[in-house]
Amino acid sequence: MSLNTQPLKVAVIGAGYWGPNLARNFSASPLWDLVAICDLDTERASQLAAKVGHPAVVADVATLLAEYQIDAVAIATPARTHHPIAMAAMAAGKHVLVEKPLADRSGAGQEMVEAAEDHGLVLMADHTYCYTPAVQKIRELVQSGELGDILFIDSVRINLGLIQPDVDVFWDLAPHDLSILDFILPDGLRPLSVAAQAGDPLGAGKACVGYLSMPLTGGGLAHIHVNWLSPTKIRSMVIGGSKRTLVWDDLNPQQRLSVYDRGVDLFDQELLNEDSSDRRKASVSYRLGDTWSPALEEYEPLGKMVAQFHASIQDSAASPTDGRAAMRVLSVLEATSRSLKKGGRSARVHGENIRLAEAQ
Amino acid sequence: MSLNTQPLKVAVIGAGYWGPNLARNFSASPLWDLVAICDLDTERASQLAAKVGHPAVVADVATLLAEYQIDAVAIATPARTHHPIAMAAMAAGKHVLVEKPLADRSGAGQEMVEAAEDHGLVLMADHTYCYTPAVQKIRELVQSGELGDILFIDSVRINLGLIQPDVDVFWDLAPHDLSILDFILPDGLRPLSVAAQAGDPLGAGKACVGYLSMPLTGGGLAHIHVNWLSPTKIRSMVIGGSKRTLVWDDLNPQQRLSVYDRGVDLFDQELLNEDSSDRRKASVSYRLGDTWSPALEEYEPLGKMVAQFHASIQDSAASPTDGRAAMRVLSVLEATSRSLKKGGRSARVHGENIRLAEAQ
Amino acid sequence: MSLNTQPLKVAVIGAGYWGPNLARNFSASPLWDLVAICDLDTERASQLAAKVGHPAVVADVATLLAEYQIDAVAIATPARTHHPIAMAAMAAGKHVLVEKPLADRSGAGQEMVEAAEDHGLVLMADHTYCYTPAVQKIRELVQSGELGDILFIDSVRINLGLIQPDVDVFWDLAPHDLSILDFILPDGLRPLSVAAQAGDPLGAGKACVGYLSMPLTGGGLAHIHVNWLSPTKIRSMVIGGSKRTLVWDDLNPQQRLSVYDRGVDLFDQELLNEDSSDRRKASVSYRLGDTWSPALEEYEPLGKMVAQFHASIQDSAASPTDGRAAMRVLSVLEATSRSLKKGGRSARVHGENIRLAEAQ
Amino acid sequence: MSLNTQPLKVAVIGAGYWGPNLARNFSASPLWDLVAICDLDTERASQLAAKVGHPAVVADVATLLAEYQIDAVAIATPARTHHPIAMAAMAAGKHVLVEKPLADRSGAGQEMVEAAEDHGLVLMADHTYCYTPAVQKIRELVQSGELGDILFIDSVRINLGLIQPDVDVFWDLAPHDLSILDFILPDGLRPLSVAAQAGDPLGAGKACVGYLSMPLTGGGLAHIHVNWLSPTKIRSMVIGGSKRTLVWDDLNPQQRLSVYDRGVDLFDQELLNEDSSDRRKASVSYRLGDTWSPALEEYEPLGKMVAQFHASIQDSAASPTDGRAAMRVLSVLEATSRSLKKGGRSARVHGENIRLAEAQ
Repeated sequence: MSLNTQPLKVAVIGAGYWGPNLARNFSASPLWDLVAICDLDTERASQLAAKVGHPAVVADVATLLAEYQIDAVAIATPARTHHPIAMAAMAAGKHVLVEKPLADRSGAGQEMVEAAEDHGLVLMADHTYCYTPAVQKIRELVQSGELGDILFIDSVRINLGLIQPDVDVFWDLAPHDLSILDFILPDGLRPLSVAAQAGDPLGAGKACVGYLSMPLTGGGLAHIHVNWLSPTKIRSMVIGGSKRTLVWDDLNPQQRLSVYDRGVDLFDQELLNEDSSDRRKASVSYRLGDTWSPALEEYEPLGKMVAQFHASIQDSAASPTDGRAAMRVLSVLEATSRSLKKGGRSARVHGENIRLAEAQ
Repeated sequence: MSLNTQPLKVAVIGAGYWGPNLARNFSASPLWDLVAICDLDTERASQLAAKVGHPAVVADVATLLAEYQIDAVAIATPARTHHPIAMAAMAAGKHVLVEKPLADRSGAGQEMVEAAEDHGLVLMADHTYCYTPAVQKIRELVQSGELGDILFIDSVRINLGLIQPDVDVFWDLAPHDLSILDFILPDGLRPLSVAAQAGDPLGAGKACVGYLSMPLTGGGLAHIHVNWLSPTKIRSMVIGGSKRTLVWDDLNPQQRLSVYDRGVDLFDQELLNEDSSDRRKASVSYRLGDTWSPALEEYEPLGKMVAQFHASIQDSAASPTDGRAAMRVLSVLEATSRSLKKGGRSARVHGENIRLAEAQ
Repeated sequence: MSLNTQPLKVAVIGAGYWGPNLARNFSASPLWDLVAICDLDTERASQLAAKVGHPAVVADVATLLAEYQIDAVAIATPARTHHPIAMAAMAAGKHVLVEKPLADRSGAGQEMVEAAEDHGLVLMADHTYCYTPAVQKIRELVQSGELGDILFIDSVRINLGLIQPDVDVFWDLAPHDLSILDFILPDGLRPLSVAAQAGDPLGAGKACVGYLSMPLTGGGLAHIHVNWLSPTKIRSMVIGGSKRTLVWDDLNPQQRLSVYDRGVDLFDQELLNEDSSDRRKASVSYRLGDTWSPALEEYEPLGKMVAQFHASIQDSAASPTDGRAAMRVLSVLEATSRSLKKGGRSARVHGENIRLAEAQ
Repeated sequence: MSLNTQPLKVAVIGAGYWGPNLARNFSASPLWDLVAICDLDTERASQLAAKVGHPAVVADVATLLAEYQIDAVAIATPARTHHPIAMAAMAAGKHVLVEKPLADRSGAGQEMVEAAEDHGLVLMADHTYCYTPAVQKIRELVQSGELGDILFIDSVRINLGLIQPDVDVFWDLAPHDLSILDFILPDGLRPLSVAAQAGDPLGAGKACVGYLSMPLTGGGLAHIHVNWLSPTKIRSMVIGGSKRTLVWDDLNPQQRLSVYDRGVDLFDQELLNEDSSDRRKASVSYRLGDTWSPALEEYEPLGKMVAQFHASIQDSAASPTDGRAAMRVLSVLEATSRSLKKGGRSARVHGENIRLAEAQ
């Protein structure tokens, strides 16, 4: 923070599940003044305000935008309300941070992105995982070429979860995996198609167990497993590279990241096609090298996230989790839903980002 | 073994990768006399014979069948040779044990099944996992209703594996998972369709990373992940039931099986459809009960398998891994290959077993 | 809480490392009114007060006791100040909760215990672990006889820890293990002697690696390993019983407690003394039964602890972590230090509790 | 093996628990001719002979030494018979390999060492762990200075074990840990004293749970925990160094060795003595660096061990597990027993090796 940096003024809209985390981090940051908490349930808003330095309590968004001098709003309300609140805020000249997902459908999201660009405002998604020390390090390792070409990505995010009233397990959990993929892949998340399989074995009326496959540019395959019904909790991602393979086990604080210098090298394509009765004869070589677990910094991800929001506004620096990144995530989620409706057949991923990918 | 049980005479055909394991177990069993080892490579056959009590060494199958007095043969040769060898053996009146997969295509397998039935001979597949203490216990737990209805099954079998010259990762690894599913499910493995996704990121000309989804009868979903490129080794299966969920971690000898009395109960379907801004309000109840890890017996699976082969012959008792079981596995593998050819679209599973399923 | 229960008034003394946790829990409890935070560093006290509902900020204990209407104080100051503050508080008629250890020497602790008894006041130690769901369940399992007789206890508490300026690794970490033993053992912690070994390989002037052995009444052996220099973190306790053995792995949230129905039964003492060249011939039998992991409730231990403090005052119910329990812990710590001074020779454990043990 | 290397002739004495492993490895090695199996129980010897290429079967040692042309014997009989057999073999001019422990008392062991030196014969102990890939790598890391000075070593070897008829848990299990320490430490295992604690909670008449502490030269502390009554199996060793710390988890095949670049550096001794009410103020710095897990070769340890035995004879190369190494282990075991008899007081470690240590 340079000497002449002035803290920006922000209001948090929504005092439910996630809002308190945002409020706490804005309140703790020297870059921000937390001016107001806005929630229809003013009792809940007041309780939150008491814990974060007593900002104002406001019942409705219109009043907030009309009467309070703020630079930005952070929206932590149900997904279907993101669009109207964000549009109103941007119309009033406010920068906007939105909890994931950006919107409940991509048309709404696209309008939000365009409104931000039209008004010259920052629209950023709270893709919290992207600001964790582990994911920051993964991005660094992928983008520096340490892993080589990406061959496959396998992500598992399962545990006994709340069956959400409004969304299925893909829309609830996969935004985490998708936003991480968008963040770490050099070109972002730009699959041309998605194929999904789902189970609803309890008859909940929506997918509770889900599998998602996407071809990566370059021939690799990404796969995501999300599950609300698993009695054990797993949050892991394997990123197989042509040089090394990274395993992220987010529930192992003693060794979250492991980089394996192991792999397979094909060295004689013809041998592969030759018939052989000896299963042990292989036309590949194996590297069985060392494993390395990089030390990670320790900080609160949301603290880093609100600092990024500030930097994007102050310095006009692009945020890696901006509205366009959020749109790429949304486009994959929508394609997932379309694939499910087609019984698992591949669904094309729409959206501006894809047109870019096709143009390349 | 009753007092008047006579050991049966057996020859092992194929002294390569798996044959020695079969030979060692036949040799060690009081139920069997290992009479001969048959391999074109008689040097290799002799080396094996020296370790298992010096049975005869025979260079070709025709000689074996013509000149040696045997009741049965165990075939551990490459998959494409299973059919001709088994057909010749059955024509000569020998019972047949075949290494997985039964054959390299289902037409051949079907002929083998029919030949066995026509001749009144036993045709059994060496689905070794089905004879492990862990899988025997899983079958008992599933079939006794301890887990309730099966909601989902998620199987992962990944490690740095040999890229096989003749088969892809599905045909190499998934027979294990599929034969286990056939063994533990009350009705066996009878999915109507299969959808598969695969990656060949090294350009090996075949799938090296694979995902397989199958609807279970009753609304559940089974999913299998097989991978030759993973630097870490995982062999796990989660069987989610309406009452309890079982986790099998085959690489944890201290706690291979865990039965979790945890789960989700829907109790008010309407609430699920009601809109709510409070993510913490859920229309479900959670059971967070105890976990239980049953003690397992310790024995060599192949010893149990050869005893089953003996019992099937002696007592005409049906084997749970008979030719028809092997055909069900083969039918799913073939459907998997068809799904891959169709870009991941669901492929119907053919075969007699499926006709049965449809007739029910 | 019965209808006529009035909240009691409490002040927290010490706003450093642990005080905020106490303040937060008193503040959140309907059983307590948090009236004041007392710290010489009033800046620090004010910051804390702002987060827990703005109780009064007081600079010194004398003023607190003289001018504020309080029923109790909670002392979270350095160990050597526990005695003077607690004595002053009790002289002023206040009930006292003290962070561990009770005092920095047992003479001081004994005076505190006697003062509490003389004044009819509650003196309780904040042995937080005793209020965790895991330790509550362990106590239940031990005291109900589920484990049988206690044969051995092995406790490990190691990680890269702060080298404390005032205490060695025993006084820093072992109070946790010792207070847990006191809490779970049917007769409390009453070893007649202690033998300790220590390492100071960095030349810090105090033990940084420590091992502590104590004979248990009944022939068992308890052993505690504490270590500030371990790069990995382990917090585990094995409680071997004649019927079952319990393993507590506090860093495994998915399975903190495991009860193993495994063990050794001697069945022929004579065989044990017989010579035998066969190492596999054993005069014992093994039980290799199931493993069971009880579900644990989820709550904040300090919340339960402040509720116990309230109950002890209101209902004159004895606290399992009262002053006498804290004295038993202190006596073992002092004996540990004496053993170290004697080069590891056993040191008798002094104190009233021990006289009781000897009288039995 | 150079071109003119002739295989040496060896006989295995003792066909019980360990003899078959030795016989198999001698039989498989091109460096050795396995000439005979010697056991009073000739039935057992014959069964073993049938599996290892049909060497001669001999009933007694005298006949073996008189009538068979052999260069060496490998003794795998009960500990108390090691001395007479080895002395007879050396008197007959045979090199000797002995299963651990070298002898059942150090006087006998010392005679064996001296006899070997007098006759110019090789006397080597089968300290198998020293020939594992993991321990070879540990030795390399310790002796190259990668870890810095050794600050502490903590070894745990526990599981549900057989209660041995002739030895206690120290003599049964600790030879493994002690021989490893002797192998990896630059100066070998030369503690001046040992303090031991033991439990016999089942009344077996011998220690079933044991703890052993030894000061290392240089100020470090080594501690060994051996236990026959633990329901879980742990085989781990932590070697804390001034630069890095190594953790060996022998039951984790995916990551047996981890080298942590973490630790504590004291940087201001005075601060340590200064009083402070702030527990977070520490006069130390922490390194929280990366973790590294070296790849290990894969081979059978006993194969390497019999190759070392051959090299020691052929090339007169000193074996790292020679008779003197075995004597150092034996001396610590005897001191352990003396410490137990003295109620845990430190017992001096006797022996030639110690005299050397004192002379330095």
